[in-house]
Amino acid sequence: MALAPAETTTAFDFGPAVALSCRECGTRYDLGPDFACVECFGPLEVAYTWNSPGSTAVPVTRREIESGPANIWRYRSLLPVPAGVAGRRNLAPGWTKLIHAENLGRELGMRRLHVKDDSGNPTHSFKDRVVAIALEAARNFGFHTLSCSSTGNLAGAVTAAAARAGLDACVFIPSDLEEAKIVMASVYGGRLVGIQGTYDEVNRFCSELIGDPLGDRWGFVNVNLRPYYAEGSKTLAYEIAEQLGWRLPAQIVIPVASGSQLTKIDKGFRELVRLGLVEDTPYKIFGAQAAGCSPVSAAYKAGRDTVQPVRPDTIAKSLAIGNPADGPYVLDIARRTGGAVEDVTDAEVVDAIRLLARTEGVFAETAGGVTVGVLRKLLAGGLLDPAAETVVLNTGDGLKTLDAVAEQARPAAVIRPSLDAFRTAIGDNQGKG
Amino acid sequence: MALAPAETTTAFDFGPAVALSCRECGTRYDLGPDFACVECFGPLEVAYTWNSPGSTAVPVTRREIESGPANIWRYRSLLPVPAGVAGRRNLAPGWTKLIHAENLGRELGMRRLHVKDDSGNPTHSFKDRVVAIALEAARNFGFHTLSCSSTGNLAGAVTAAAARAGLDACVFIPSDLEEAKIVMASVYGGRLVGIQGTYDEVNRFCSELIGDPLGDRWGFVNVNLRPYYAEGSKTLAYEIAEQLGWRLPAQIVIPVASGSQLTKIDKGFRELVRLGLVEDTPYKIFGAQAAGCSPVSAAYKAGRDTVQPVRPDTIAKSLAIGNPADGPYVLDIARRTGGAVEDVTDAEVVDAIRLLARTEGVFAETAGGVTVGVLRKLLAGGLLDPAAETVVLNTGDGLKTLDAVAEQARPAAVIRPSLDAFRTAIGDNQGKG
Repeated sequence: MALAPAETTTAFDFGPAVALSCRECGTRYDLGPDFACVECFGPLEVAYTWNSPGSTAVPVTRREIESGPANIWRYRSLLPVPAGVAGRRNLAPGWTKLIHAENLGRELGMRRLHVKDDSGNPTHSFKDRVVAIALEAARNFGFHTLSCSSTGNLAGAVTAAAARAGLDACVFIPSDLEEAKIVMASVYGGRLVGIQGTYDEVNRFCSELIGDPLGDRWGFVNVNLRPYYAEGSKTLAYEIAEQLGWRLPAQIVIPVASGSQLTKIDKGFRELVRLGLVEDTPYKIFGAQAAGCSPVSAAYKAGRDTVQPVRPDTIAKSLAIGNPADGPYVLDIARRTGGAVEDVTDAEVVDAIRLLARTEGVFAETAGGVTVGVLRKLLAGGLLDPAAETVVLNTGDGLKTLDAVAEQARPAAVIRPSLDAFRTAIGDNQGKG
Repeated sequence: MALAPAETTTAFDFGPAVALSCRECGTRYDLGPDFACVECFGPLEVAYTWNSPGSTAVPVTRREIESGPANIWRYRSLLPVPAGVAGRRNLAPGWTKLIHAENLGRELGMRRLHVKDDSGNPTHSFKDRVVAIALEAARNFGFHTLSCSSTGNLAGAVTAAAARAGLDACVFIPSDLEEAKIVMASVYGGRLVGIQGTYDEVNRFCSELIGDPLGDRWGFVNVNLRPYYAEGSKTLAYEIAEQLGWRLPAQIVIPVASGSQLTKIDKGFRELVRLGLVEDTPYKIFGAQAAGCSPVSAAYKAGRDTVQPVRPDTIAKSLAIGNPADGPYVLDIARRTGGAVEDVTDAEVVDAIRLLARTEGVFAETAGGVTVGVLRKLLAGGLLDPAAETVVLNTGDGLKTLDAVAEQARPAAVIRPSLDAFRTAIGDNQGKG
């Protein structure tokens, strides 16, 4: 129910969060498992004590953050979670490496390039961040089952988090996903259901399920828990800034699936400025899509404000959302910050995966190939400044999308265990290596 | 060359390391790419300023360690690496999670169980630790190519580390390894060579190659760089103790392949005691093998001091070393500390992988199934105290050994995107879920 700010109360423990607030019209609601404004259908976002009207609170200092745990809970004062969250049973994701990519930078002619490598998370994708926040919301609301529609990574993150937390899980994926993602989403227990259709069809199915008695007391992390869930992506912004020495990068390349991650990284940067944790320096945000699912990139290039849904056809399955909910916001942010949205072909994705692996020893999933590929394309097109401090995101792990590179990543030779055989193989391979 | 302690000098920068020393007869050597004592053929170990005869140096305090980086370089004062190692191009492994496994503990009737989860390393196995140390040695010796014999994880760790460091790589594996390990060892560049034979045959081949001009200026991390390489496993002991609040666990279960990791964890614990960083409390070390490659377990049970080589046949390929170099030391340590060595069948390995995943949200590779399976078996046999603080190691990632669980980890159902279809599937699956 809509209510005035003064009436905001809650029996839950959401830490500094006090209400939900419509992104479009600002209407405020009690903290609940809601995601759309009943007034204008706009998306709901979490409002905090420290960003509520009239607040002068300083929620946290650099020193307090730096003395926190080496995971996202170091930012608990900026998230809708209880103060004691670090002691609860969760996967404690985050604080992944920000790699100074000197070798890749040299190949691309860039001087200050960093890779934020979220393959270091517990289930090896950035999804552990958002699920950890949604899990706390599910606990607050007394949900017994954690659920989601997923392009793969999210399903594994949800079932793993539910296992640790002792909740049931039931997750939904397109049935044609990569083998590794299917196994990973099954091995933690819970129930994995394959849907014969695209991610967008899986997503619609989940929306129906929420309205059905079958889905009662289920927390769909990216539907009815979405306002909480989405806040988890802010931690990428916080970590990047802190790992750069409390500074915003000048440029950042972010993959675009639903677009939520990109909008929340922008939000995270702006919060850090507002809270005085970093200086207010300009930054450009670039969105990256695969050509086989590039509705936002297409809209950007056409100068449109709206996104035309597409039917995805790309090896970057974790980005294969044809009808991205936050697409218009991505367009707005790219234009406002002086960034862009670009897309690359599947062949360019594979090349970029191999480039990143060969130069930095980071094996990215196809989504990481998309961002590195787009980085290269933007540089070639003069849209990205090679001299400016730049961060490119790798949000997942190459072990989950092996097929993308399996053909090119084979042994140079298979031989008997003898020096002669090796000599012959070396000879055979000279000029190829 | 053998030399007296006073003559120890080096033009290299190995930080606090001053010499190599024979584990058997104590003969000391200059720091070099050597691994066996010319006097007695015993293995060489790294000697430091702080553990050399007559030294009263205190190399490091808890506070200094705690203020270090969130990776193994926080222990650089106890390793053969230069003081500035954290600023060099390497994968910065370590500081992986020590998970308080409350759910698994409850299932097993244990009160204080922890999982040390080394799947969080850059290439998702503990091998990144040992390779990072070997890399510094390779740089010191001016080697241009990093190499190894590997059961899979090491090959990926070596090629990734070489990529980051800008060295060439040429790595050797049995040609029948898991697909994921083959792709991972190839994707970082360098040269991957499959050998038609067991790991032990690959290892013998590498020893020949070191003596051949072909292998000139090659650093075989686990052969001619082995004394340095092996020191990396000590960081597991350091981290476990620090993460427990500077305390030794009462019991620890460690996988046994060559046996090196187990011996070095024991060494790490003893160093912490000697340096006054932890109290001298008793600990029991348990070795874990797969029944299909259990030469050390067999020797332990037979009361023998020597290990009879076997031909491996197990899904735990990363532990499939039939002729383990450090087998006798493992026997000695297990007996001296009041531990044991045990083995489990492939079926028990798969069960244990699923148990760990379902209870803690940790997807282990087969080697992790071996340790958790052995933990369970030791408990059932009364050899392990369920009330004592216990650590079990997971040294690798389930994504690399998917086949082990792929049959059991399938979708509960594949359906059309409709509530009716879901209702039918739920009905069909009732009683199974």
